[in-house]
Amino acid sequence: MTKPYKLIQRHIRPEGSAIQVGTSSIGGGSLAVIAGPCAVESAEQVFAVAEAVAASGARFFRGGAFKPRTSPYAFQGMGEAGLKILAEVRERFGLNIVTEAMDEAGVDMVEKYGDCIQIGARNMQNFSLLKYVGRATKPVLLKRGMSATLEEFLLAAEYIMAEGNYNVILCERGIRTFGTHARNTLDLSIIPAIRRTTHLPIIVDPSHGTGRNYMVEPMAMAAVAAGADGVIVEVHPEPENALCDGAQALTAEQFAVLEQRLEMLHGAVNAEEAVMSRA
Amino acid sequence: MTKPYKLIQRHIRPEGSAIQVGTSSIGGGSLAVIAGPCAVESAEQVFAVAEAVAASGARFFRGGAFKPRTSPYAFQGMGEAGLKILAEVRERFGLNIVTEAMDEAGVDMVEKYGDCIQIGARNMQNFSLLKYVGRATKPVLLKRGMSATLEEFLLAAEYIMAEGNYNVILCERGIRTFGTHARNTLDLSIIPAIRRTTHLPIIVDPSHGTGRNYMVEPMAMAAVAAGADGVIVEVHPEPENALCDGAQALTAEQFAVLEQRLEMLHGAVNAEEAVMSRA
Amino acid sequence: MTKPYKLIQRHIRPEGSAIQVGTSSIGGGSLAVIAGPCAVESAEQVFAVAEAVAASGARFFRGGAFKPRTSPYAFQGMGEAGLKILAEVRERFGLNIVTEAMDEAGVDMVEKYGDCIQIGARNMQNFSLLKYVGRATKPVLLKRGMSATLEEFLLAAEYIMAEGNYNVILCERGIRTFGTHARNTLDLSIIPAIRRTTHLPIIVDPSHGTGRNYMVEPMAMAAVAAGADGVIVEVHPEPENALCDGAQALTAEQFAVLEQRLEMLHGAVNAEEAVMSRA
Amino acid sequence: MTKPYKLIQRHIRPEGSAIQVGTSSIGGGSLAVIAGPCAVESAEQVFAVAEAVAASGARFFRGGAFKPRTSPYAFQGMGEAGLKILAEVRERFGLNIVTEAMDEAGVDMVEKYGDCIQIGARNMQNFSLLKYVGRATKPVLLKRGMSATLEEFLLAAEYIMAEGNYNVILCERGIRTFGTHARNTLDLSIIPAIRRTTHLPIIVDPSHGTGRNYMVEPMAMAAVAAGADGVIVEVHPEPENALCDGAQALTAEQFAVLEQRLEMLHGAVNAEEAVMSRA
Repeated sequence: MTKPYKLIQRHIRPEGSAIQVGTSSIGGGSLAVIAGPCAVESAEQVFAVAEAVAASGARFFRGGAFKPRTSPYAFQGMGEAGLKILAEVRERFGLNIVTEAMDEAGVDMVEKYGDCIQIGARNMQNFSLLKYVGRATKPVLLKRGMSATLEEFLLAAEYIMAEGNYNVILCERGIRTFGTHARNTLDLSIIPAIRRTTHLPIIVDPSHGTGRNYMVEPMAMAAVAAGADGVIVEVHPEPENALCDGAQALTAEQFAVLEQRLEMLHGAVNAEEAVMSRA
Repeated sequence: MTKPYKLIQRHIRPEGSAIQVGTSSIGGGSLAVIAGPCAVESAEQVFAVAEAVAASGARFFRGGAFKPRTSPYAFQGMGEAGLKILAEVRERFGLNIVTEAMDEAGVDMVEKYGDCIQIGARNMQNFSLLKYVGRATKPVLLKRGMSATLEEFLLAAEYIMAEGNYNVILCERGIRTFGTHARNTLDLSIIPAIRRTTHLPIIVDPSHGTGRNYMVEPMAMAAVAAGADGVIVEVHPEPENALCDGAQALTAEQFAVLEQRLEMLHGAVNAEEAVMSRA
Repeated sequence: MTKPYKLIQRHIRPEGSAIQVGTSSIGGGSLAVIAGPCAVESAEQVFAVAEAVAASGARFFRGGAFKPRTSPYAFQGMGEAGLKILAEVRERFGLNIVTEAMDEAGVDMVEKYGDCIQIGARNMQNFSLLKYVGRATKPVLLKRGMSATLEEFLLAAEYIMAEGNYNVILCERGIRTFGTHARNTLDLSIIPAIRRTTHLPIIVDPSHGTGRNYMVEPMAMAAVAAGADGVIVEVHPEPENALCDGAQALTAEQFAVLEQRLEMLHGAVNAEEAVMSRA
Repeated sequence: MTKPYKLIQRHIRPEGSAIQVGTSSIGGGSLAVIAGPCAVESAEQVFAVAEAVAASGARFFRGGAFKPRTSPYAFQGMGEAGLKILAEVRERFGLNIVTEAMDEAGVDMVEKYGDCIQIGARNMQNFSLLKYVGRATKPVLLKRGMSATLEEFLLAAEYIMAEGNYNVILCERGIRTFGTHARNTLDLSIIPAIRRTTHLPIIVDPSHGTGRNYMVEPMAMAAVAAGADGVIVEVHPEPENALCDGAQALTAEQFAVLEQRLEMLHGAVNAEEAVMSRA
């Protein structure tokens, strides 16, 4: 069986795609750092994180107004009120907003308030939703499903593009395995596989990918060394009081250090690549 | 962390729930056999299978009008036209119709034409859709996600019930593992775990669970021996010409034998259980 | 790549192999039930279990004198003293002894005292040991490795047979997956795959395969319904005081019920198969 | 249950262990690069690779004289003749020799000819062999089993150390998952987990860990960025003609580039760490 890839194929744009997200872009050689809390909990919380994120030099802000929670009895997100807070983050701090939508109504709202529509891992094969965001005007950040193969992941992107929205950013966020030292197993080997197969940018989520605060920095570094176009990480003013996923959130101080280290690493790897390619 | 189970808990109905599906029921001690083609392809194909299914004594018919396909370029199902064919199957053959919905519009249509709304594995954590079918009037067949834990599976059922629809049937359909001798790994040990935890019925899909024609009978037998309330299997008049999943479909002849063997097995296991419990 | 199977191939003995183990045999249409404690702890413990096992009608006794323990600081088994106790079980109760060897010295001792050399899951690809038991005179019970594919499992058997020992019994004992409701995921779909590929008998270990007392009976029943040649289960006089794996051991009473149910099931499935094949 | 770690615990040597291997060491802040062919095939092949490895600045040479092959009919290695060739590599090129032993006789021979005894993934829980190398005088490179948890991996090291051999180097080499884009899934998140738990060095095998030539460099880079003490990679003069694992071997030219990039990366990450720790 030949793999039915069409629009995602590398040879269509051999140099790789740079996807415009608000006032900045992801892919195309620059390093994208997307940071923010798991969930939008309040304006105070969000602004505190946003200030730290902007100060560190990152250009993208994340935060969930609609939260896909395993239990129906868990906090489900602030909804449109949360999106309005995120829109204010863009105004105040100049950060571009990446935020998740879980259904068609949510997509419409994210189009209104945000800069990039995130499709979560659990919806990676929600084909109706993929088709719907394929008709949206904003770019899409598509997270790999917990047990998705490379082919399934790329065909999910193909679903979006087949509807006309070519602005898709892929995101590895860890897969389900037998392992227990991390919440998921971050599969960085998908980075070179994606580079080889498609022109779409690939970023990595070491926060959900490990579920452990102390693993976020080493895995973010590893992702960039492996060739990722960026990372998306969780930052919370008080991780221990977060309404969701506190165990994996970085403090503002940890994030500032990480941002600096990632820039250094990205520069070193690329400078040297430039030297190599001249040789 | 205590598991936030509420409505699914076994002790609420210690004898187990029997869920009414059309004119018959699933759970509560009887054996439910749901059979039919993967996809509704044409009236001729569907009626041929339905005749064989009805003749064998089975009470439920399956067939997809909306197909969740990995590729956007694969056959996506006949849509409403397919549902009308299924409605005709009910009229002609007295079979109760189980068919998948992938989004809200699809749920509305399945409510109109079918007897039971199937939520596929890829949508098991499509929480917006779960909430929507939680407000539907027809029962829901909820398939386990490919990498869902028991807890995630049960909480997906809880999502539906929390909205008011208590008629949920669980379905094990195989999980993703490293194995390659079958398309998925059918996890029958979830049957006793589900029996112990919840009052909801549990059935098994040995067709998707193995992806191999020759494995369907032994795994269906194993499921019933392990205590499943029924099975859902794929039957096709010409498996080699099926538009989807032909490699796993049974012929009408194979299905007739299977139905007979399952009835025998279910009788033997239950007769003996009855003897035991009198002792 | 063609699979390099030679001696294990089904067509060599299309009717399937019956392997002589002491005074009885495994495979060839009969049902083999192997039961006993995880570890030999004392003569008293072992004789108590053996009496119950023999009384139930089972023909094979299991019990470990050499225990592969995850921690070097855990009880490692009684060694030769344990084997002597097992030999006495054979004398007293007429049961055939299946017991594990972990190295060459152990194989020599099991050859002296036991009837069947068990190779554990962790040693399934200990190729030096496979070659060594390939030169032994007693039959070998080969357990599937926790992450072994069908091909790796069968080639491990091929390693033994290539050295001249054709008396190999295969045993499915659960694989490693993301699941947490059982200790391992019992992969019963390997039974039909093995039936189709090789003439060697296949049995199932629902005790290690689930790690849960309450799952042993349903999974043992499922194994026989799926066509297994037998089961190997753990029985302990006082599961709560077992030195290893107590959570999964059956009491003598539970085992007596299980043995009876398995015989009934095996009879029902086979009687009906006989009827079918006459038709 | 408290984890029964004793000798491997981080607090015993908070600064981390540097393990002497021949004339050099692994761990303790330096970068260890171990390179060479999968199998020793001939003196010519080995010397060609060794010359390239030495020229690149690497200090360790790998090559298998005993090969754990899935099939009994595949090339099983040159045995002692291969070890003699490796000993000559040390004489001629000053490289320290890391080579696998699969049984006690093999351990004795590797002790005679080599500098470090490798225990392969398939033998990670061959407890008899672990105890035997625990009484050897040479250091041990212990590869993680394909489905080993962190705890099982560390307790395997504990087995060796409990016998008196404290010179253990851990090696992540990929785990079994559902993924198909690489032969295994390299689990780099185990690096920070190991750093936190034990003082033993941890290296990574991106060759077996991916099984793909083009993934070796990005995954080696990722491993070092995540904090690994080194890498072990396969190099072959003519990968397409290798007797085993040719698809993943680097050419000498590819390896020279990789070595240079890894040194650069290790320097950049550490220089910057030094700056940070002064701050």
